[in-house]
Amino acid sequence: MQPITSREIRLKSRPDGIPTPQNFEVAEVPLPETAENELLVKNLYMSVDPYMRGRMMDRQSYLPPFQIGHPLEGGSIGEVVESKNHKFKPGDLVLSMLGWREYFVSKGDGLMRIDPGNAPVQAFLGALGMTGLTAYSGLLEVGKPLEGETVFVSAAAGAVGSIVSQIAKIKGCRVVGSAGSDKKVAWLKEEAGIDEAFNYKTTDNIFKTVDKLCPDGIDVYFENVGGKHLEAALETMNPQGRLVMCGMISVYNATKPPVGPSNLGHIISKQLTMQGFLVGNYFHQMPQFQADMGKWIAEGRIKWKDTVLEGIEKAPEAFMGLFRGDNFGKMVVKL
Amino acid sequence: MQPITSREIRLKSRPDGIPTPQNFEVAEVPLPETAENELLVKNLYMSVDPYMRGRMMDRQSYLPPFQIGHPLEGGSIGEVVESKNHKFKPGDLVLSMLGWREYFVSKGDGLMRIDPGNAPVQAFLGALGMTGLTAYSGLLEVGKPLEGETVFVSAAAGAVGSIVSQIAKIKGCRVVGSAGSDKKVAWLKEEAGIDEAFNYKTTDNIFKTVDKLCPDGIDVYFENVGGKHLEAALETMNPQGRLVMCGMISVYNATKPPVGPSNLGHIISKQLTMQGFLVGNYFHQMPQFQADMGKWIAEGRIKWKDTVLEGIEKAPEAFMGLFRGDNFGKMVVKL
Repeated sequence: MQPITSREIRLKSRPDGIPTPQNFEVAEVPLPETAENELLVKNLYMSVDPYMRGRMMDRQSYLPPFQIGHPLEGGSIGEVVESKNHKFKPGDLVLSMLGWREYFVSKGDGLMRIDPGNAPVQAFLGALGMTGLTAYSGLLEVGKPLEGETVFVSAAAGAVGSIVSQIAKIKGCRVVGSAGSDKKVAWLKEEAGIDEAFNYKTTDNIFKTVDKLCPDGIDVYFENVGGKHLEAALETMNPQGRLVMCGMISVYNATKPPVGPSNLGHIISKQLTMQGFLVGNYFHQMPQFQADMGKWIAEGRIKWKDTVLEGIEKAPEAFMGLFRGDNFGKMVVKL
Repeated sequence: MQPITSREIRLKSRPDGIPTPQNFEVAEVPLPETAENELLVKNLYMSVDPYMRGRMMDRQSYLPPFQIGHPLEGGSIGEVVESKNHKFKPGDLVLSMLGWREYFVSKGDGLMRIDPGNAPVQAFLGALGMTGLTAYSGLLEVGKPLEGETVFVSAAAGAVGSIVSQIAKIKGCRVVGSAGSDKKVAWLKEEAGIDEAFNYKTTDNIFKTVDKLCPDGIDVYFENVGGKHLEAALETMNPQGRLVMCGMISVYNATKPPVGPSNLGHIISKQLTMQGFLVGNYFHQMPQFQADMGKWIAEGRIKWKDTVLEGIEKAPEAFMGLFRGDNFGKMVVKL
């Protein structure tokens, strides 16, 4: 029986600084009938990602801004519950970018059918999906780590960072990561198997800590955080080092222009390369990524954590939690 | 007749902030006799360069620090006045890195014989020498400008910037430059033939000026200055743009950590590449550079300015003048 309404999470107002519950609203909308060639999808899991903060601002960027009063968009995994489209049948699992709503009617454009095999379906939002591809392409195509080199990963217990860290280990690197809790640090060392990890919230001096844990210097820095992390990395980078600029979560909620690193001159004296990375330019690597990642997972060489909140109404809380480091690995909402 | 003494400029103390005359001293030293296999060189021109400021600090970097009480080192062009080495004869012109002294005795190691042809000899310290190679390799190998792209050059009337600007024109780019006086701006537009130039010292708002003069955005930024120049460039960069990080003269005399650019996040959202450049890694391009540059000069497509101070005792003043923008093009001292 087709449901007649669907709940969705809308942007109610643009956050000024740290997002608050008042920036979001839950709305219940009528679902149109499924017409010829259309299908109805029930979302099962929604992805909650730091980059969405950028789209909440009214500015031109690589993706258009979210509109006030419209539902937020992001990756989600859903199940086809009704289909009048010959390409899909009820029970099919599909990945969409339509985001934060319980149901949607579609002509099938932009939907990707997925076959989870033995993997939990939500992994297609994380390690086996866009998050994993971000880690894979960013590290290997931009960072280009060589065996024996030192890779420093900030937010190493986060969705992207945890995969970056483990791929770097598979490639024979010495891997050092930062994280925001002792529990995350323990997981990185004991489960993910990286060489060194530290709690950046309790370290006295991140410069000294990074320098001490990377006695041979840093060859590749995978940047998810910005701020002092970047400054400390620049200090310890080796000549010809590469900085993969993937995210800067520490400044996404800044209400005034953040202070840039004071030691950017190292880029010249150490001949560093600092390169911005957006996964959207690397979709062509998806088949290779899925082949490699599938193999590594089967071999038990890649592990990951999900932080799952239940109920669409929890999505704003999940999103706000990203900036407090509430997530351990990938943050998803289960519907 | 062999001279018996030579004057040299020594580092007397390490500058704290802007260098002052007290940081330098002139010393007169006895010259050893020219022994078997040795030659005596009389310097004619000495190169005075901003990068030398870095070597005045006692820190590890890509070149060892200058030592207190020792003569400063840098490029110089000299003439062989006496030779007991079969590879050199009196009258030969040689390029050395032995720097700020009137005469030196050498076994010939590290000396490069030059044939000035129709060019003034001091051009081998500037457009035809290391300065020109810096511009050539930095722009073409790191910036990789394509025909029709916009190249923004800071300190465009400086030694490196003026050559970068004209090579970019030769490569079919739209070229915009900043300079520190109206006279330099006029030269850039009228003599060097670049598309737009502005006086950064008198512009109200460098962000608006750069944006207005680069209506199609910036594809390649050639960085000689740092500070607000870099911030303005980041603001106007096009997606996939390249930043060639060659120098940051605005921060070389900083007595406290300089404030980095507040908008470094553009590196991610615009997928920029910011790459540090040291000419020392591009010496292998010297033959290709000299061939191209010789041709361009013969065709009248590359022009340059020298600022020449006379007398070795003027070297500290010439050096200090770099940070006031006293130089128009290459700063050299004629002995």
